[in-house]
Amino acid sequence: MASTTEQTVVENEVEQIGLLNGVEDFYEGITVEIEEHMDSHVFVPLLRASISKWKNQGKRGVWIKLPIEFSNLVHHIVQEGFRYHHAEADYLMLVRWLPNTPDTLPVNASHRVGIGAFILNKKRQVLVVQEKSGGFKGTGVWKLPTGVVNEGEDICEAAVREVKEETGIDAEFMEILAFRQSHRSFFSKSDLFFVCMLRPNSFEIHKQDSEVEAAQWMEMEEYVNQPYNKEHKLFQYVAEICELKSQGGYVGFSAISTATDSDQNTYLYFNGSDFTKI
Amino acid sequence: MASTTEQTVVENEVEQIGLLNGVEDFYEGITVEIEEHMDSHVFVPLLRASISKWKNQGKRGVWIKLPIEFSNLVHHIVQEGFRYHHAEADYLMLVRWLPNTPDTLPVNASHRVGIGAFILNKKRQVLVVQEKSGGFKGTGVWKLPTGVVNEGEDICEAAVREVKEETGIDAEFMEILAFRQSHRSFFSKSDLFFVCMLRPNSFEIHKQDSEVEAAQWMEMEEYVNQPYNKEHKLFQYVAEICELKSQGGYVGFSAISTATDSDQNTYLYFNGSDFTKI
Repeated sequence: MASTTEQTVVENEVEQIGLLNGVEDFYEGITVEIEEHMDSHVFVPLLRASISKWKNQGKRGVWIKLPIEFSNLVHHIVQEGFRYHHAEADYLMLVRWLPNTPDTLPVNASHRVGIGAFILNKKRQVLVVQEKSGGFKGTGVWKLPTGVVNEGEDICEAAVREVKEETGIDAEFMEILAFRQSHRSFFSKSDLFFVCMLRPNSFEIHKQDSEVEAAQWMEMEEYVNQPYNKEHKLFQYVAEICELKSQGGYVGFSAISTATDSDQNTYLYFNGSDFTKI
Repeated sequence: MASTTEQTVVENEVEQIGLLNGVEDFYEGITVEIEEHMDSHVFVPLLRASISKWKNQGKRGVWIKLPIEFSNLVHHIVQEGFRYHHAEADYLMLVRWLPNTPDTLPVNASHRVGIGAFILNKKRQVLVVQEKSGGFKGTGVWKLPTGVVNEGEDICEAAVREVKEETGIDAEFMEILAFRQSHRSFFSKSDLFFVCMLRPNSFEIHKQDSEVEAAQWMEMEEYVNQPYNKEHKLFQYVAEICELKSQGGYVGFSAISTATDSDQNTYLYFNGSDFTKI
C-alpha cells in the first residue's frame, strides 16, 4: 500500500514512511482499500501520516475497507478514532469524520427486502407452497411462494426468479399489489415485503426439494379461506387483495425502467392505469 | 461472562474455565453479547469450550455481538472460524455456522430507504425546497422535500417528520404515489425511494437552516416544467404523477396498520380505493 508518489522522492524522514493510497469521492471523502497483509507497527504510522495529509487537504470522511483476512488491523484502526460503518461477510468498512463539525456520512442499509408472488392459472387457481423450514414449517398452511431480494436485484426480477426456483413455473412480472413494512425483523433491521402479481408462461410444477415441502395450484377460495389467513389481519388483507385482483377489481403498481445507465436498472413502480400522459 | 452454571461446580479442569452465556433463538441458534473487556488469552479458551458444548447440543448458528470497545477480540474470533454478518457504528456482529450443511443464516440488510413528500396547499401550489448540499447544491432546481427513513421508522411517519424538519409545515400522510428502486447507491447497497402524498395542516414555512437553502410554495405547472425534470426520465414521471394527483386523476397506495404487537407498527400499503371488503 505504500505509495510511490513524488512526495516519497523528497529527502524527508516523514515522507519516506509512505502514505496510504485512497480513492477520492464527490463529498470530500477518501476510501482506502487494504489489499495486503501489514503488521500493525507498519500500518499505524502509515495511517497517521495519511490522516495528517488528508486533514491538510480538507478531506472530511475517511473510509477504510478492510477484508476479513486482515482483521488483525481492526483494533488498531478503531484506536485511531475510526468507527464501524457496515460489514459484509468478507469485509468490514470503518469510517472516521475528520472535521470538527457534525458528520454527514451516509447511513447504513436499514432494510431487508422480500417478495411474495401471486400467480393464477387459467382456471383461476393460485400457485401455493408449503415450506420445509421457517415459521410455517409443519403448520399445513399453503402460502404464496416467497423469497429474499438479492443484493443488487430488482424486485420484479426477484419475484420471477423465486417462483422459478421454488416451483419451476416460468412467469413474468405484472404488478406490485401491496407492500408491508415491519421492524426489528432481525436485530434492529426492518423489512419490506412486496406482494407481486405474475403471469405464468408455464403451468407444470417442478418443486424445489431443499426448501419446498409441497407445491400446487389451489382454488382461490380455498386459499383465501384458510383459517390462518382468517386469524391474521395482514394475511387476511393480502389474501383478499389477491382475490379482488383475481376478479379484475384491483389495480396495483406496474414497473417502468427509468435507467440512464445501461449497466444497472432503476425501476419506478406506480399506478399505470391512471397514467397515460407519457 | 464466565457462567456459574451447575457444570462449573463439577471438579473438572475443562469445566472450570467456564462457558460463555448465550441466548437461544427459534432457529437452533445462540447469540452471545460480550459485555466486558477480556484479554484474548482468557476469551479464546472460553469460546472454544462453549463451541464444543453448542456443537454437542446441535446448535447451528453462533452469533457474537461485539461492542466496538472490545475490538481487541475481532481478530481472535475470526481465527476461530467466524465471519462478519453486519456492523453498526458501535458494534460488530460475527457469526459461525456449526453444522456441515449449507448455512441458512439470514441475509444482511441490503437497502436504504428514503422518502420524498408531495404536498399541495389550497391554491394547488406544491411545497418545494432547494438543498444546501448533495447533488442538487447550487443547481437552482426546486425539488420535493426528501429524507432518509430512520432505523425502525415507518415510511408514512418519516415523510411527516422530514417535512416538519425541513419546512416547519405540519402535515399528515395520505398515500404512496410511487416508488423507485435503484442499485449501488452506496457501495453495494440498493435504495428504495417512496414518493408520499401528504395533506398540510399548516401553511407558514419555517425552513431548516442547516440543510435547506430555500423553501416555498410553487405553482404546480412551474414545478413540473423545470428543465431538470424535463431532462430526467425519473423526475419527469414523478412530476407528472404529482400533477395528475393534483388534478384528482391518480390513486396511490394508502396505509393501514396491521400490527399485532402494540410495541411496533406494521403497515400494509395498498390501493384502498379498490378495496372495500374489509
